Amino acid sequence: MIEEKLKELGIELPEAPAPVGNYVSVKRSGSFIITSGQLPWVGDKLICEGRLGEDVSVEQGYQAARQCAINAIAQLKLAAGDLDDIKELVRVEGFIHCGPGFRGHPDVLDGASDLLHEVFGEAGKHARMALGIHEMPLSSPVQLAVWAAVKD
Amino acid sequence: MIEEKLKELGIELPEAPAPVGNYVSVKRSGSFIITSGQLPWVGDKLICEGRLGEDVSVEQGYQAARQCAINAIAQLKLAAGDLDDIKELVRVEGFIHCGPGFRGHPDVLDGASDLLHEVFGEAGKHARMALGIHEMPLSSPVQLAVWAAVKD
Amino acid sequence: MIEEKLKELGIELPEAPAPVGNYVSVKRSGSFIITSGQLPWVGDKLICEGRLGEDVSVEQGYQAARQCAINAIAQLKLAAGDLDDIKELVRVEGFIHCGPGFRGHPDVLDGASDLLHEVFGEAGKHARMALGIHEMPLSSPVQLAVWAAVKD
Repeated sequence: MIEEKLKELGIELPEAPAPVGNYVSVKRSGSFIITSGQLPWVGDKLICEGRLGEDVSVEQGYQAARQCAINAIAQLKLAAGDLDDIKELVRVEGFIHCGPGFRGHPDVLDGASDLLHEVFGEAGKHARMALGIHEMPLSSPVQLAVWAAVKD
Repeated sequence: MIEEKLKELGIELPEAPAPVGNYVSVKRSGSFIITSGQLPWVGDKLICEGRLGEDVSVEQGYQAARQCAINAIAQLKLAAGDLDDIKELVRVEGFIHCGPGFRGHPDVLDGASDLLHEVFGEAGKHARMALGIHEMPLSSPVQLAVWAAVKD
Repeated sequence: MIEEKLKELGIELPEAPAPVGNYVSVKRSGSFIITSGQLPWVGDKLICEGRLGEDVSVEQGYQAARQCAINAIAQLKLAAGDLDDIKELVRVEGFIHCGPGFRGHPDVLDGASDLLHEVFGEAGKHARMALGIHEMPLSSPVQLAVWAAVKD
């Protein structure tokens, strides 16, 4: 059902991106699945690089957050086996690489939240936090970690 | 009992503040309740704005962290229905909007931790992390997320 | 078994470092143990201070992250009683105090991840997030929080 929804939205899930270091890209423990920090990979390139409020527009940031969410869904699938075993999303941790005075955090992160709601519907409802980050690995504009819960 | 404690302390819980974006203000999953990042709203205004070490004093920051904690309790009530169903607090994630060289993170965040201990007593004991943040949504001086566990 | 592994690696666990504020250094709730943000204490001093990319080299940062992980293991022991009751590590949250343009987050945090894998083996596999932080409590170069799960 979730796979059909993705098809409907024209989203083809990528391979779950590999970790950048000595850790795993996603972990399942008890009823939770937790992704590592997701960057907006499209193949082997980031969708864009730099800072919001300087090199990256809010619209580009929105698309970057959306791409992070697509990659997070690929991680959830890797951990759950079947996306229909996801009971619900729990939490999105959103980190935005930005220049001084940037205040558009919610507009950027809605790129992830909008997509997660489209894909998972009611089960996609999640708590969120939003921080403006000084220096990001690989100069990625956005980093996103997602917590989900699996069905019993 | 918790409601009586709040009354004793002269704290009137506000309506749980609405989210600033396409997410929910608090999520319950399994035995955990997790608030979204709480800002120091008093009605429709932040208690103060700006950076610790620049525009905001440590005492103002302490009060801002305290207000975030009050709002977090309102979120816990929204999710739990009854605050006496909270088994224990688990974790406080504290983020401080600050200027270069600021080192007073613990003093500011104790504004939240002191209040949570006053209200919940022994059950209020929590792990904590403290980060100094570059740019904060709405230029809020503090952002706080709280994890709690509910009784079986 | 974990204690033997530590001995083999020549690691003597310190006393679990005390919290810097009104919170507890580690919390157990349900099947999870969550450490507070760990700093690279060696006795009563940080192993080094300052920013990656400015005052602190990547190699020093690696050692600092490793020390944070050692202190985190001491916290896990404090909470679990016996390290052999740890079922698995779940998540490492890594925060790096850095100057403008720093991009070596993964190299620094591998100092923690490498150690955790050496000590816990397969059970040490964890998800990770990595953020470059503007201002850190006590000017610590690294802060690390660790989630673990205990055996039933």
